[in-house]
Amino acid sequence: MDSRAASEAERTGKFMIKAGIIGATGYAGNELVRILSCHKDVEIVWLGSKSYIDQKYSKVYQNMFRLVDDVCKADDVNELAGQVDVIFTATPQGFLAGLLTEEILSKTKVVDLSADFRIKDVAVYEKWYGIRHQSPQFLGEAVYGLCEINRALITPDTRLVANPGCYTTCSILTAYPLVKEGLIDVDTLIIDAKSGTSGAGRGAKVANLFCEVNENMKAYGVASHRHTPEIEEQLGYAGNRPVTLSFTPHLVPMNRGILVTEYASLKRGPDGSLPDYARIRAAYEKYYAKERFIRLLDAGVCPETKWVEGSNYVDINFVLDERTGRVILMGALDNLVKGAAGQAVQNMNLLFSLPEDEGLLMPPMFP
Amino acid sequence: MDSRAASEAERTGKFMIKAGIIGATGYAGNELVRILSCHKDVEIVWLGSKSYIDQKYSKVYQNMFRLVDDVCKADDVNELAGQVDVIFTATPQGFLAGLLTEEILSKTKVVDLSADFRIKDVAVYEKWYGIRHQSPQFLGEAVYGLCEINRALITPDTRLVANPGCYTTCSILTAYPLVKEGLIDVDTLIIDAKSGTSGAGRGAKVANLFCEVNENMKAYGVASHRHTPEIEEQLGYAGNRPVTLSFTPHLVPMNRGILVTEYASLKRGPDGSLPDYARIRAAYEKYYAKERFIRLLDAGVCPETKWVEGSNYVDINFVLDERTGRVILMGALDNLVKGAAGQAVQNMNLLFSLPEDEGLLMPPMFP
Amino acid sequence: MDSRAASEAERTGKFMIKAGIIGATGYAGNELVRILSCHKDVEIVWLGSKSYIDQKYSKVYQNMFRLVDDVCKADDVNELAGQVDVIFTATPQGFLAGLLTEEILSKTKVVDLSADFRIKDVAVYEKWYGIRHQSPQFLGEAVYGLCEINRALITPDTRLVANPGCYTTCSILTAYPLVKEGLIDVDTLIIDAKSGTSGAGRGAKVANLFCEVNENMKAYGVASHRHTPEIEEQLGYAGNRPVTLSFTPHLVPMNRGILVTEYASLKRGPDGSLPDYARIRAAYEKYYAKERFIRLLDAGVCPETKWVEGSNYVDINFVLDERTGRVILMGALDNLVKGAAGQAVQNMNLLFSLPEDEGLLMPPMFP
Amino acid sequence: MDSRAASEAERTGKFMIKAGIIGATGYAGNELVRILSCHKDVEIVWLGSKSYIDQKYSKVYQNMFRLVDDVCKADDVNELAGQVDVIFTATPQGFLAGLLTEEILSKTKVVDLSADFRIKDVAVYEKWYGIRHQSPQFLGEAVYGLCEINRALITPDTRLVANPGCYTTCSILTAYPLVKEGLIDVDTLIIDAKSGTSGAGRGAKVANLFCEVNENMKAYGVASHRHTPEIEEQLGYAGNRPVTLSFTPHLVPMNRGILVTEYASLKRGPDGSLPDYARIRAAYEKYYAKERFIRLLDAGVCPETKWVEGSNYVDINFVLDERTGRVILMGALDNLVKGAAGQAVQNMNLLFSLPEDEGLLMPPMFP
Repeated sequence: MDSRAASEAERTGKFMIKAGIIGATGYAGNELVRILSCHKDVEIVWLGSKSYIDQKYSKVYQNMFRLVDDVCKADDVNELAGQVDVIFTATPQGFLAGLLTEEILSKTKVVDLSADFRIKDVAVYEKWYGIRHQSPQFLGEAVYGLCEINRALITPDTRLVANPGCYTTCSILTAYPLVKEGLIDVDTLIIDAKSGTSGAGRGAKVANLFCEVNENMKAYGVASHRHTPEIEEQLGYAGNRPVTLSFTPHLVPMNRGILVTEYASLKRGPDGSLPDYARIRAAYEKYYAKERFIRLLDAGVCPETKWVEGSNYVDINFVLDERTGRVILMGALDNLVKGAAGQAVQNMNLLFSLPEDEGLLMPPMFP
Repeated sequence: MDSRAASEAERTGKFMIKAGIIGATGYAGNELVRILSCHKDVEIVWLGSKSYIDQKYSKVYQNMFRLVDDVCKADDVNELAGQVDVIFTATPQGFLAGLLTEEILSKTKVVDLSADFRIKDVAVYEKWYGIRHQSPQFLGEAVYGLCEINRALITPDTRLVANPGCYTTCSILTAYPLVKEGLIDVDTLIIDAKSGTSGAGRGAKVANLFCEVNENMKAYGVASHRHTPEIEEQLGYAGNRPVTLSFTPHLVPMNRGILVTEYASLKRGPDGSLPDYARIRAAYEKYYAKERFIRLLDAGVCPETKWVEGSNYVDINFVLDERTGRVILMGALDNLVKGAAGQAVQNMNLLFSLPEDEGLLMPPMFP
Repeated sequence: MDSRAASEAERTGKFMIKAGIIGATGYAGNELVRILSCHKDVEIVWLGSKSYIDQKYSKVYQNMFRLVDDVCKADDVNELAGQVDVIFTATPQGFLAGLLTEEILSKTKVVDLSADFRIKDVAVYEKWYGIRHQSPQFLGEAVYGLCEINRALITPDTRLVANPGCYTTCSILTAYPLVKEGLIDVDTLIIDAKSGTSGAGRGAKVANLFCEVNENMKAYGVASHRHTPEIEEQLGYAGNRPVTLSFTPHLVPMNRGILVTEYASLKRGPDGSLPDYARIRAAYEKYYAKERFIRLLDAGVCPETKWVEGSNYVDINFVLDERTGRVILMGALDNLVKGAAGQAVQNMNLLFSLPEDEGLLMPPMFP
Repeated sequence: MDSRAASEAERTGKFMIKAGIIGATGYAGNELVRILSCHKDVEIVWLGSKSYIDQKYSKVYQNMFRLVDDVCKADDVNELAGQVDVIFTATPQGFLAGLLTEEILSKTKVVDLSADFRIKDVAVYEKWYGIRHQSPQFLGEAVYGLCEINRALITPDTRLVANPGCYTTCSILTAYPLVKEGLIDVDTLIIDAKSGTSGAGRGAKVANLFCEVNENMKAYGVASHRHTPEIEEQLGYAGNRPVTLSFTPHLVPMNRGILVTEYASLKRGPDGSLPDYARIRAAYEKYYAKERFIRLLDAGVCPETKWVEGSNYVDINFVLDERTGRVILMGALDNLVKGAAGQAVQNMNLLFSLPEDEGLLMPPMFP
C-alpha cells in the first residue's frame, strides 16, 4: 500500500502481515489506514468499500493523497480471505454475521469492529439491535478484544476478535478495577457518556450536519443505547454477577473524543467506613500500573479528551465524594483510536505475537 | 441609552424604569444590555465596569456599536443607587455583599446575579465559597428569584432578588416537580451538567483560550462545585427535607448552552410498582403546563441546547427506564439568558408589575 | 401563526399582512419564521415545504416549539397566491421561474430569495446556473432588492422582488461607494469571501457533515461561483460600465456569518496622488451615514462576523495601503439575516410602506 | 527524555542528537516535543520555559503525561549551548537576537523559530517589528530554512537556521514556481491568508478566548502584518527583483491550519495569449514533483486544511481564470508542523545529514 513499506518488504524479504480492510471508507476505516500505513510489519492489500468501488482511495480521503495509491475494491470478505493474514471489518451491524463461515476463518483471522460478536447471549443481541443474528455459531469462539482485560485470550490461535465499541471501551476500563475489587455497589452504577461526532459515522444525515451539531449538545438513545448490554456483560464478568446499569450517551460538537463520567455508591466496610482515597487508588494501580495505554492521572487532575487525541491512550481518574458516599470516575479516549482502529491494531499485534504497542506509540496531539 | 427608546420616553412622557448595570462588561452584563436595550419600559442609565471605565461601551462590545453610545462608568453602587429604580449586579462573588447597605436598598431595588444572597445559611455559603459573608443581615430579606417557583415572593415590595445561577436554574427546574410530588428518592439524585464556555466569563485565562477548549471536553469542580449547595437548598424546600446530591459540571466547546442530565431512582408505590409515564408526565404538567418559559417536550424528544439559544426558554423532558427503576431527566437552557440576564429581567418585570415576559419573547435562533 | 399575534389582530381589528413562506423548512425559511413571528404587522398563514408536508413545523424546527403550531403544507404557490398578501420563496434555483405567472403576480407580491430574477440578462443566468430560465418575461419587472441602493424602486406598486444573495449583499455593499465615486480601478477588484456553513443549506451531504467542516477550511467554486455575475452586474450599474472581477468563496467552520475582504487599486488623481483616508471615508459616509443597517466602523476596527450575528446589520470598514496603492475593504453580515431573511423582510416593509426596520431591530448577539 | 528512547540509546550505544528546546511550553514548543519524542535519532535534554520553571512538563502539557518525565528548566541558552548539539528557540521576537553570541554558535547549532534572523535587511526588520535588532552581525550567516527552496544551503556546516513563519511558508511555497518562472506579474500578487488560532500562541488574552474566537471570523494586521516583508524578500529572490504585495491574515475558529488564497495576473506571451493550464502545471511540477512534503493536488481539487492536519505536508493547487486573466493559487498546511515545529525538524535533519523526512512521516489525521 504505502509504496515505501511495500518496497522495503521486498528488499528485505521480511515477513509482512497482509491486511485487508472491509469498510475502509468509513471514519474508523480511514483511521485503520492511517495507523496501519505506519505499522512496520503490515502491508495493506485490500481497501474494501461499499460506496466507492473502483475509485482511488485518496480521492475519498484526500489526507492519504500520495500516501495510498490503491483504488477501493468491493467489501468482498470471501474473496479477500484467501489473500490476507487478517481482515478488519469496520462495517454496519449484521454485515459480518451475515456472511461469516468456517471457511473464511480457516483462511484468515478476523478483527471485527462491529458489534456482531461482542455479546455472547444471542437473545440479548437480537433484542437490543433489532436484527436476527445470522451466525451465532461463532459467538462462543469470538474473543472480546479488550486487551487490557482479556489479553491472555488473544493469541496466535485466536481466529475471531470482537473489537469493543468506543463508548464501551471507555466505560468498562474506567470502572473495571472498582467492580473487580468489589469497592462499589454495581447496582448504583450510572454512566454519563459524551462523544464527539465522528462516532456517528460518515453517512449523510441531517442530524449530523455541521449546523445541527455545532453549538449544540444533546442526549440520545436514553435508556436504550446498544452499547448498554455490552458494558453490562463485561462488568458482569468482572463483578461475577449480573449487572444492570444506566448508560446515557451525549453528542458534543467536536470531531474526536469520548468522555465518561461514572457515578457509584461505595461499599462500606464492616465498620461502616467508606474506602478511602488510597484504597481506591490502589485498586486502579493493581490492574493498570503496568498498562502501556492506560494512564492513571495524578490526584486532582480530570481527564480531558484533547489530552489523548490521536493516540491510543485512555486517561482515567476518580474523585471520592465523602458527602454523598459516592465515587465519581472519569475516563477519556479517542473514539477512533483506542475506541476503534487503535484497539483493533492492538488486538492484531497480540494475534501475531508482535509487541502490543507496535505502531501505536504516536503521542497525543495538542492543541 | 438606546437613543430611540430614550427619545420615545421623552416624547410620550411614559414612565421608564431607570436601570443601572454593575459589571456591564462581562458576558452576562452584555446580555443584560442586549435584552434591556429592546425592553420597551426600561432605560439603561449606567453601565458600570471595573476594567473599562471611561471607555465607550461599544468599543468593548462592538455588537452594540451605534446602538449604545454611553461610556462605561465605575462599578459604584452607592452613587448609582440614588439615580435608578433597579440595579443589576453582574459581579464576582463577594462584591455586592461587601458594600450592600440599608441605605442602598432604601433607594433602589437590586437584582444580584452573583451568588451572594442565594444561600440562606451563611455557614454553608462561607464553606463553599471560601470567603466571609460581609452582609448576612440581608440574607433573610433576599428572595431567591427562580420565578417559576417563587413567583409569589417577587413583588413590588421586594427589594433584593438573588438571581439563580445558570447550572442551578437548569438543575432545579428539571427536577422540581418530581421532588415536589415525591416521585423520586432524592438521596439517589445525580446531576451531570454540561456547559458552554461563556459561563466561565471574559477573564483572560489560559484554560479558557480557544485552543484549550475547542475539540476538548472535561469535568471540573467534581464533588466541590459551588452551585451544589444552592441546588440542594432549593430542592430541599421542594421536598421538605434536607437533600445531599452529586453535581458534576463539564466544559463543552460551544459558546452558550447548559444541558443537565439527571438520574434518580423512582419511588415505588405500596404495591411495589413504579410510577408510570403518565404519572410522571402529570407531575410536570401540574407545575409547568402554564409556564411561558418552560417547554415540556413531546414524548421521546430530548432537549438540545441549540433549540433554546438566545431565548429565555427551558426545554425539559424525561425518560422512564423500567430496567433500572430510574428516571432520566433532561433540561436545556441558554446560560446567559434564562441562566442569567433573561431571568434577571424576568425578575425585574415581576418587581415592577410588568408582564413577566415583557422583553423576553425573542424566539430561539437556529442554527 | 403565533397565536398571540393572531389573537391581537382579531382583538384590535388591525390590518395584518398575510404572508406565506415557500421553502419554510430550509435554514433561510426558518429564519423568516423567526423574524416574522415577532413582526407586529405580519401573520404567517402558510408554511410550505417539499419534504415535511403534514408534519408539525415545530417538529422540524424544535426552536419554534410552542411558538408555531401549524403543520407544513405543500410548496404550492398557485394555491397560496389567493390567500396572502406576500409570498416569500426560499427555494432552489429554477423553482419560482418554473411556475411564476401573471395570475400569481396579479394576486400577491413575491419576494424571491432564490437567484431566479436577480440577473437581468437571461443568457448570463443560463450560462452560470446551467438551467434554462422558464419565465424570462418577468425579468424586466423584477426589482433587485438591495434596499440601501434600490430603495426608491421598492414600492407598494412593486410585485416581484429579487432578494439578493448572501455573498452578493456583502460584496456589493462593501465596494459600492468606492465604485460609484470612481475611487478604485474596478478591473483590479478581487473579492475573497468567507462563509459559515448555514449558507450551504440543510440538505444531507457528506461535504456538510460536522466532521468534514469542523476544524477545516477550503475555497470552493473558484472562478466559477454563481454569485459572481450578480455582483458584476450590480457593480456595473454603480460604475456605469461592465465589470469583470475575481470572486472566491471559502467555507469556514461556523454556523453563521459572511466576511468579505476586497482588494482594489486606487485610482490616482491627475497629480498622481492617491485618494487619502478622508476622501475614501467621505465616500462611504456619503452613501451610508444615514443607513440604519450599515455600520461604518471607526478607523482601525476590522469587521467581525460575531459582532453582527443574529442581526440585520452590515459592518464595513477599509484600510488604505499606500505601500501597494491598494485599498482593502472589509464587510461582515449574518448570511441568514441581512444575507437572506432579514433583507427579505426589509423589502417586505418597503413593499407595504412600513418603517423599513420594522421587526428587524434585534441587536447582534454576543458571544 | 522519553525514557524508552534514552535507554535504547544507552543500550545500543547509538549516537543520539542532543536537543534543547527554549520556549518548550508554547504551542510550537509542545509540537517540537511531540515530534522529537518520536524521532529515533534525537534525545531531548532540556525543556526551557519562562513561566513554568521547575514544574513537570507533563503538568503543563498533559498530553505528554508518562511520555515526558522531565521538569522545565530556564530559558538559558548559554548554559544549554554547552550541553546539546542543537537548540530550538521557539521564543518571542527579539529574544534570541538579544543574547546570541559567537560562543554559543561555536558550541551548538541553533534553529530559531522566531523572526529574528529571517530578514536580511536589518532596517526592514526594525521597521516592521518595532524593536532594535541586538545582533545583526549574524544576519549574514543565518540561512533561511525553507528547505524545499534553500536545501543546498542547509548543511552540517550551517550554524544558524532562521525557520520560516507559518503564514510565510504557505504563502511562499504556493507562489514560488510561478514567480520563479516569470508566469505572473508579481506586482499584482495579493495573498489572502486564513489561520487557525494556535498561531496566536498560548498567552492569556481576551481576544483569544474561546467565546471571542468561536463562531467568529475577522481580518487583522491589514496592510501591516509582520510576515509581509519576509514573503516579499523571499519572492524577491525568486523573481530576481523587489516585490511589494498585499498580505491579509484572518483568524478562523479552528485550532490548526493555514489556508492561503493568492491572486495574480498572468503575464501574457508575445502573442498576447495567457499561459495555459499545462504551462502553469508544468511550472509547479518542475520545482515540486520530487518534493516529499509538497503535494500538488489533482486538477480541480482545492486544498483543505484538514487534509494536512498533524502532518508536515503542504497541499497546493491553482485555478486558471481566463475571464479575468488571473490565476488563483491555493495552499494549505498545518501551522504548527510545516509552519513551525515540523519544518524545524526538517531543517535539523539536513543539519545533521539525516534523511530529510526522518521523524516527519506521520500521515495527516482525519477527521
